Amino acid sequence: MASPVRLSLDRLMNRIGALGRIGAFTDPVTGDTGVCRLALTGADRMARDQLVAWMRALGLTVSIDAIGNIVGLRAGRGPAGETAPVMLGSHIDSVATGGRYDGALGVLAGLEVVEALNESNVTTRRPIAVAAFTNEEGSRFAPDMMGSLVFVGGLPLGDALATVGIDGTTVGDDLARIGYAGSADTAPLMPSAFLELHVEQGPVLDHEGVTLGAVTGVQGISWTEFTIDGVANHAGTTPMALRHDAGHAAAAIACEVRRLVTALGPPQVGTVGTIRLHPGLVNVVAGQATLTVDLRNTDNDRLREAETLLHSFVDDLAAQEGVRIASRRLARFDPVAFDETLVSRVEALARDHGHAVRRLSSGAGHDAQMLAPVCPTAMIFVPSRDGISHNPAEHTDPAPIGAGAQVLLDLTLELANTTPETTP
Amino acid sequence: MASPVRLSLDRLMNRIGALGRIGAFTDPVTGDTGVCRLALTGADRMARDQLVAWMRALGLTVSIDAIGNIVGLRAGRGPAGETAPVMLGSHIDSVATGGRYDGALGVLAGLEVVEALNESNVTTRRPIAVAAFTNEEGSRFAPDMMGSLVFVGGLPLGDALATVGIDGTTVGDDLARIGYAGSADTAPLMPSAFLELHVEQGPVLDHEGVTLGAVTGVQGISWTEFTIDGVANHAGTTPMALRHDAGHAAAAIACEVRRLVTALGPPQVGTVGTIRLHPGLVNVVAGQATLTVDLRNTDNDRLREAETLLHSFVDDLAAQEGVRIASRRLARFDPVAFDETLVSRVEALARDHGHAVRRLSSGAGHDAQMLAPVCPTAMIFVPSRDGISHNPAEHTDPAPIGAGAQVLLDLTLELANTTPETTP
Repeated sequence: MASPVRLSLDRLMNRIGALGRIGAFTDPVTGDTGVCRLALTGADRMARDQLVAWMRALGLTVSIDAIGNIVGLRAGRGPAGETAPVMLGSHIDSVATGGRYDGALGVLAGLEVVEALNESNVTTRRPIAVAAFTNEEGSRFAPDMMGSLVFVGGLPLGDALATVGIDGTTVGDDLARIGYAGSADTAPLMPSAFLELHVEQGPVLDHEGVTLGAVTGVQGISWTEFTIDGVANHAGTTPMALRHDAGHAAAAIACEVRRLVTALGPPQVGTVGTIRLHPGLVNVVAGQATLTVDLRNTDNDRLREAETLLHSFVDDLAAQEGVRIASRRLARFDPVAFDETLVSRVEALARDHGHAVRRLSSGAGHDAQMLAPVCPTAMIFVPSRDGISHNPAEHTDPAPIGAGAQVLLDLTLELANTTPETTP
Repeated sequence: MASPVRLSLDRLMNRIGALGRIGAFTDPVTGDTGVCRLALTGADRMARDQLVAWMRALGLTVSIDAIGNIVGLRAGRGPAGETAPVMLGSHIDSVATGGRYDGALGVLAGLEVVEALNESNVTTRRPIAVAAFTNEEGSRFAPDMMGSLVFVGGLPLGDALATVGIDGTTVGDDLARIGYAGSADTAPLMPSAFLELHVEQGPVLDHEGVTLGAVTGVQGISWTEFTIDGVANHAGTTPMALRHDAGHAAAAIACEVRRLVTALGPPQVGTVGTIRLHPGLVNVVAGQATLTVDLRNTDNDRLREAETLLHSFVDDLAAQEGVRIASRRLARFDPVAFDETLVSRVEALARDHGHAVRRLSSGAGHDAQMLAPVCPTAMIFVPSRDGISHNPAEHTDPAPIGAGAQVLLDLTLELANTTPETTP
């Protein structure tokens, strides 16, 4: 049920504004103000320092672990068996041309939950933790969601620290350089539940005029690069029947992606975001081509079906056009399903407050998907105006931010006060 | 009929070899030796100097005109009314990664015709001219076929000389620099007929095992650049129905080019040689795309039909996908038909010598198409191995070179000895 504790939207928006000034830049073309706060840069350090200062001011016990994750802990009053915290979190790094809401919202809403509870003198049975995970975006260091992946044991710490980034430095060196190579023991921080408030990064809520999204899971992702070898030839002198046109094969694959995705229907999506032709001249039949195919589905069986259909088409095409087509898997993540009980609670609490809410899956990756295997997990989405994301024009109105943060607060209170027997 | 004068294939191949050593380079990957003899460079000057020396050694009167065309004239014995020469020619400039036959063959076969006639002490009624036209390839200075276009009055001399090339210099400055800014009066050189022996630059003759091609004309060319404006978006979070995918629109246009060209049938050809997507990332729906479409046909009405069908498809596509598509005409040349009487004579002479011959049109542009409006014109093609052109791997066997040059000689003798009343 909706809790009697009310958060302050003004405080939350003020913190979003203040953090958004760290690493801020103005797009020279559009005039929009965005943030460039790439992981483990000077701007990331300044944002981390601000976050730690806020946590300490709220009375949280701050710990930094070896991959630089920052966790602020608010003590609970429960018995020894109920020390696993309810964790609220996300990230504060950004892409090079990011907005102020992506990631920051989930962390700062966590702080606001804490401040509202402090103000109301509410103590929960379980501790409440607010986490900012290192390098969620993966823009400087692959893979993305690195901090949360290491936190749950999905990537060995040594491998993560040794990762060389786009600037030639390692994660370990840069963590030490910015003063966030910590040593906290993460075992006591392992959560009993994880909640992440985030901007949708897609157009569904905005397009439908729905205030909140109850996120059912994260789509599975399949990335494939196709490299086509044909024969470069003169565009005027080579009859169509004698061509081995790598450019045409690339276009045919792209058209097939659209066709099969349409045939499979939602939630299957598919994108050809890159096509390169060589030599790339108006009057030369392309001898080589590369393209990438991004397929996503919440259902792993249907995602596999899409992959199989595409590869079968590509094999036929190669034979028909007399070209060689090699494929390379760039990425493959299985879909993640969030905890059904928690998803239902997000929906119910949103309705209790009178907000329009719908279930939807996330097309983007989030720290929550790394936590999902280790504890009941849910996400709350707020609308992204026009679905614009990873862009200085990223925007969410204050009203849905307040609505989403209040549902986060309500559900946190429920989970932190539930006795172990009834914890979802 | 086949003439009693026989040319020397050895002499012709030796000259091809010698000219091919000027500007020679070896492809570091394949080991093939090609030529880089871009127009008006030092290599072009060396090749011109060699050509002029050969012309003088054969007793030709050499003239250089203001656009740098080199013409060597062999006097005729006819009356004053028959001074318009039969002209044989092509070009000696190359693309940056060219072969030794493209262009050079037509000029050097002309020299061999002269030497064979000299050796046999044959004097013709009309003069015989051997021409090497400036900048046929257009690789450094646009447009291509510049020298022959200026020669026939199709491009004002001043415009041609003022052309700024890819190195920032002008045609006029570079002509002066290499010593080929001549002043010859071209009026006395205007030919009564023009013949060009050339490599096919396509696979038809090689693929069919035919020795010689009687070229019926040059295809009309239509080049269009399409620029598509859609909306860049997240590949995971944007449902298919809400996309405005510039990359998909580009692929759909490329697939339609193949479809409509196949539906129209030969000799219609169509090529999408360039596709560029922006931002060009695996997980971003492309916001912008550009592609080029190269359409060619020997029949101008059918070429216009192909253009109309394509534009109609593009308009429908833009409406359907919710993208804006702008088109820009990059080039448009009407088809050129060669002289039917001369084309028939090429066929007949080839058969007289026992060579397999077929009619075909040229998909590439040639100096001959510039001469066609001012005098009866024909071309003879010899096979390009595997259709490879503008490549160090360009190759034609000596036997068809000898066959083609002999037909050139035979037809030259016919035309140069025909009285004006029966000139085709």
